[in-house]
Amino acid sequence: MTEENKYNAPQEVKDLNIINTIELEDFAKEIVPSGGFDYMAGGSGDEFTLRRNVSAFNQKGILPRIAADVEFPDTQTKIFEHNLKVPFIMAPIAAHGLAHESKEAGTAKGISEFGGTIMSISAYSGASFEEIEEGLAGNPRWFQIYMSKDDELNKNILDEAKADGASAIILTADATVSGNRDRDTRNKFVYPFGMPIVSRYLTGSGENMSLNNIYGQSKQKIDLKDIQFIKHYSGLPVFIKGVQTPEDAMAAIAVGVDGIWVSNHGGRQLDGAPASFEVLEEIAEVVAGRVPIVFDSGIRRGEHIFKALASGADIVAIGRPVLFSLALGGWKGVKSVFEYFENDLKRVMQLAGTQTITDVKNARLKDLK
Amino acid sequence: MTEENKYNAPQEVKDLNIINTIELEDFAKEIVPSGGFDYMAGGSGDEFTLRRNVSAFNQKGILPRIAADVEFPDTQTKIFEHNLKVPFIMAPIAAHGLAHESKEAGTAKGISEFGGTIMSISAYSGASFEEIEEGLAGNPRWFQIYMSKDDELNKNILDEAKADGASAIILTADATVSGNRDRDTRNKFVYPFGMPIVSRYLTGSGENMSLNNIYGQSKQKIDLKDIQFIKHYSGLPVFIKGVQTPEDAMAAIAVGVDGIWVSNHGGRQLDGAPASFEVLEEIAEVVAGRVPIVFDSGIRRGEHIFKALASGADIVAIGRPVLFSLALGGWKGVKSVFEYFENDLKRVMQLAGTQTITDVKNARLKDLK
Amino acid sequence: MTEENKYNAPQEVKDLNIINTIELEDFAKEIVPSGGFDYMAGGSGDEFTLRRNVSAFNQKGILPRIAADVEFPDTQTKIFEHNLKVPFIMAPIAAHGLAHESKEAGTAKGISEFGGTIMSISAYSGASFEEIEEGLAGNPRWFQIYMSKDDELNKNILDEAKADGASAIILTADATVSGNRDRDTRNKFVYPFGMPIVSRYLTGSGENMSLNNIYGQSKQKIDLKDIQFIKHYSGLPVFIKGVQTPEDAMAAIAVGVDGIWVSNHGGRQLDGAPASFEVLEEIAEVVAGRVPIVFDSGIRRGEHIFKALASGADIVAIGRPVLFSLALGGWKGVKSVFEYFENDLKRVMQLAGTQTITDVKNARLKDLK
Amino acid sequence: MTEENKYNAPQEVKDLNIINTIELEDFAKEIVPSGGFDYMAGGSGDEFTLRRNVSAFNQKGILPRIAADVEFPDTQTKIFEHNLKVPFIMAPIAAHGLAHESKEAGTAKGISEFGGTIMSISAYSGASFEEIEEGLAGNPRWFQIYMSKDDELNKNILDEAKADGASAIILTADATVSGNRDRDTRNKFVYPFGMPIVSRYLTGSGENMSLNNIYGQSKQKIDLKDIQFIKHYSGLPVFIKGVQTPEDAMAAIAVGVDGIWVSNHGGRQLDGAPASFEVLEEIAEVVAGRVPIVFDSGIRRGEHIFKALASGADIVAIGRPVLFSLALGGWKGVKSVFEYFENDLKRVMQLAGTQTITDVKNARLKDLK
Repeated sequence: MTEENKYNAPQEVKDLNIINTIELEDFAKEIVPSGGFDYMAGGSGDEFTLRRNVSAFNQKGILPRIAADVEFPDTQTKIFEHNLKVPFIMAPIAAHGLAHESKEAGTAKGISEFGGTIMSISAYSGASFEEIEEGLAGNPRWFQIYMSKDDELNKNILDEAKADGASAIILTADATVSGNRDRDTRNKFVYPFGMPIVSRYLTGSGENMSLNNIYGQSKQKIDLKDIQFIKHYSGLPVFIKGVQTPEDAMAAIAVGVDGIWVSNHGGRQLDGAPASFEVLEEIAEVVAGRVPIVFDSGIRRGEHIFKALASGADIVAIGRPVLFSLALGGWKGVKSVFEYFENDLKRVMQLAGTQTITDVKNARLKDLK
Repeated sequence: MTEENKYNAPQEVKDLNIINTIELEDFAKEIVPSGGFDYMAGGSGDEFTLRRNVSAFNQKGILPRIAADVEFPDTQTKIFEHNLKVPFIMAPIAAHGLAHESKEAGTAKGISEFGGTIMSISAYSGASFEEIEEGLAGNPRWFQIYMSKDDELNKNILDEAKADGASAIILTADATVSGNRDRDTRNKFVYPFGMPIVSRYLTGSGENMSLNNIYGQSKQKIDLKDIQFIKHYSGLPVFIKGVQTPEDAMAAIAVGVDGIWVSNHGGRQLDGAPASFEVLEEIAEVVAGRVPIVFDSGIRRGEHIFKALASGADIVAIGRPVLFSLALGGWKGVKSVFEYFENDLKRVMQLAGTQTITDVKNARLKDLK
Repeated sequence: MTEENKYNAPQEVKDLNIINTIELEDFAKEIVPSGGFDYMAGGSGDEFTLRRNVSAFNQKGILPRIAADVEFPDTQTKIFEHNLKVPFIMAPIAAHGLAHESKEAGTAKGISEFGGTIMSISAYSGASFEEIEEGLAGNPRWFQIYMSKDDELNKNILDEAKADGASAIILTADATVSGNRDRDTRNKFVYPFGMPIVSRYLTGSGENMSLNNIYGQSKQKIDLKDIQFIKHYSGLPVFIKGVQTPEDAMAAIAVGVDGIWVSNHGGRQLDGAPASFEVLEEIAEVVAGRVPIVFDSGIRRGEHIFKALASGADIVAIGRPVLFSLALGGWKGVKSVFEYFENDLKRVMQLAGTQTITDVKNARLKDLK
Repeated sequence: MTEENKYNAPQEVKDLNIINTIELEDFAKEIVPSGGFDYMAGGSGDEFTLRRNVSAFNQKGILPRIAADVEFPDTQTKIFEHNLKVPFIMAPIAAHGLAHESKEAGTAKGISEFGGTIMSISAYSGASFEEIEEGLAGNPRWFQIYMSKDDELNKNILDEAKADGASAIILTADATVSGNRDRDTRNKFVYPFGMPIVSRYLTGSGENMSLNNIYGQSKQKIDLKDIQFIKHYSGLPVFIKGVQTPEDAMAAIAVGVDGIWVSNHGGRQLDGAPASFEVLEEIAEVVAGRVPIVFDSGIRRGEHIFKALASGADIVAIGRPVLFSLALGGWKGVKSVFEYFENDLKRVMQLAGTQTITDVKNARLKDLK
């Protein structure tokens, strides 16, 4: 990348006074280079699924229970060995460096300063494990793998993640090729920097490569045996991410998966798929508590977290709002947005008459017309 | 509050020629200071519930019965010992002084001059009982309590309300903290004047305090025992306000509540809740006439009153349209808007073929697509 | 009405090249004085029912039968003793003089020149029977009565209508007072000319009087006995117009009504009512062919006529498109719009695979999401 | 057509870099003469059915199966004796010369260069069989007939089509007259060139004639015997095109039709009909695999192809996107758009977890609200 083409990622580090996370997208658009912004904000196809991920929350209404004797709602929950202070974590996202020069290390530091949650590290991170650790400072982390076609390289990557302290592996199975993202195609978007973790299986570092190119060099033929391979080799709990059907949830449980991650990749992969929220409840019904369910795609408000938990999720993961906050305020911005969600969720819990996360999960929602 | 920051509330007193109450919001926006206007007009979160409160009336159609031998429809009804000339009353709303310098006394005078209805006095009134009485002039009133954390202070407040002549107490239970109101947060809104009734339990008068601050100093842990406490201490009938589920209605009736107030606080508290109208019918079914039902949130036209009554409400309460009318015309504006609703309801009753309020309550509505 | 306030109704007489009838409204708006235009085009309340009258046709889809051996579809049908060349007639509408200086006589001449259909004459006509006859020239006509509070005057009116040759009486029962029409209220609309037919029971000619005033002087207490009164006194078949429920249809049939007219008065009376098309099918099911059904409100295209007939109407009546055509081209405009509908219906019948009106009535529609 | 009125069809030949096919319409609008553009892009009536053809795909969501062991999805399929490399073909469309001076020969060459699919030749082609063959170069083709009222002429046309190598005949039965196309009426659109194939039964070549005129000279009374006539005379398989009901599908199968073509003519014929996609599934259920089903109307993305196949279509036909591509890039544009759909479908198949077209047809869709 020549000097004159240099990608000028935002650099500011500051606390954010967040009114709501929807407008963060507009603010980020003003300061992030357009190719990077479109990559982060955009979806595939008509962006039908992207929009629906948020709007589908309006298909169900929260029924507040009043006179419920609630005060200081308790947002603590637990997943695997982790005691969380909030039921939401960082979603795995590639290339945080598009948002801020601090890259994933900035996000990690924001999360670490917030505390009591989990960082998901994408295999397509623009920062190395070592760089991320500078921000993460021992905070829990999960590792999201994009597999190589070569299992020996996968072993190497898993070794490295495990050495880094990852306590679970997330197998993203809904992204064996890139979604048809019109914005990126129009922008001829290529990553302005490399991806240290997967560069071992790329022909090149990742820099100046398109997502299509990178996905093409990773493994397409993901199947249930990959869950078993990762689980047995790493000895770590394995999530399968991108689950949108009861059938896939059941099949993954049958081969020993440790967690179901309901997601449509933020509307970035298969457009024309239902909203992630639209498929959650029926998946939760068949999972029936056997393994935990993580939910992502579309979370913008505390009400959304509430509705996802009440529909069967155990925890939710947050993506774009964190990335936009990283762009706007670096690690302090990330900390701000986690605090925003914590406060907003507590307020919703108080108003809905739910003292604990268990109460939230037992809350009844109303189907709206 | 320094002189230069003085809140310049409208002062004009005049009759209003009301075409419809929807446009009153636009007219009020032109003359009310923006912070006050946004506080009055705004809702929480995405304002989904705020908008839906009005639009949900379109989910059901009035089926006019023609050739029904109707003339001069009779809008009289009764609730408790009160004979009302119309089936609608004033909703409890805080801080009328934001709309007009006459504060709650102006509203009270407008209601008193209209006659045959009930004033609800909010504990967050900007005027004292004595000031309100100047306008109310003996007209019936109910008192809406926001409870202190200290029951001795609650007793003092109830004593004062009873001495003022309140004939029922409204326990608002859907507002134990403030909703997440983006407009107020953006405006850094604080009340420009104090709240005499609850100032006894506030650290300060209320002036220059935010809603979050004030709610925070009131009681969060509202439960069914509070209904009993208020009822037994005051000897007055008690409404529980903010009911949105059959479960809460049944629980409140089981502990002796005297009336159910179906409301979502005008979309100001928990966004993502259903429209108030959407939950009315199923609540009315379980209440089954054992206690009266008051309905608010979204009433803008006579048709809305009709649909609420036909869905199970005994009377409805009107909020924002009155406040905007107060802003535009002081007490005369309030009288004008009550007259508007009376005329509009009579017209709707005539056209729908319903001679009496009982006929309205027995009318069949059609579910629309 | 002083000279300077004179209502300048359009005067041009010309054939219209009609592309569609929706845009006729826009064209008419340019030439009709605004008060008159709003009176004609507007509806009551939020105009929810007005808009829905047209959009509700999209709730059902025509299922074309292909390879149906159709050529030169036959639009002839019969109602009572009248052989019609098309299954649509003129709806009763007040005050055509707002649209064109030729008043109802212009409409009548257009219909007469088209031939094979029926003119409905409103009791609120701005032209006298004699003036209308100049245009109608012996063509069939029905008379729509707005009743006086005084039955002797009603007898006089019926005598006059019968003498004029009316072959049926339409009792409009959905308009015992005026709908709440915001546009007219805002415009302080009064009729710029008198109403010769009902002036016998008005205090004044009708000129410079509001609709509220005029409706107020007519009879409110319409009931089923009025059907019997009109039928027995006039000896003519009687329609009840404004039927929106199966209950009213059955009740009217029980007292001997000769035809059911399903209508919501073009969305001008009770806003918040369902679209006229939305209630048609269930009414037709209970009428079950015992008496004919006329349908109006919302017809703008041949497809709409088709859908109404396939949902149980025997004939439809057309209102605003005719009035706008009258404004744009006088009697020639009226003839043009009748021709437009005839051609459009024939095309729809051909494409839907229906040779006759009976075929249309037997066509299956598909409920759309 | 005089020189100064000459229709200036685009002439450029170039590869297209297609981001999506929706925006092709906007690009084409800039270079195609407006009358021709409106003819191609427009629909009938309110264009309700035109718009719904695309939006109705959002009524069902693709449920991606992940971890499905898919790589290099195989889009091959077979219809009759044709092995296709993709499950989509060219829809029959009149007058390609409106889009590009190369007329149907350009489209044919694009298809031939792409290979592995089928060209549908419309009887209303602006090019002769001989001219089209220059582009088609032996590639498979089907012939869509608009019948003459004179069966001897129909025999001549069928003879010619057969001699040209057509391997099936498509009887378009949903277009016995022209739809009511407001745009064409407004533009007074006439074809700027003749139609060599049907000119034998027209009074004139087709040049300067309106669609209404041309349709009027073709046969209206299409019925099931025409299927038999064409089949027996030509000895070729016969499709009936325009099927929108299970009834018509069953009736056509009963008389020996060889394929059902579900279509509403791209929303150009009967407005107010359901979207083509909305009727597909119920037709496929009754056809039950006895004959193949071709689907058209509304295909704009790979997701749409997927949803149509998963709802019962065997192959789909693509219309407007090809025509706009022809306008923008001549035969190279046509090849580009076929390549676009191939790539997009493969991506969708990979992401949906479907290795073969059979997998696609067995995929489960989710009904969306």
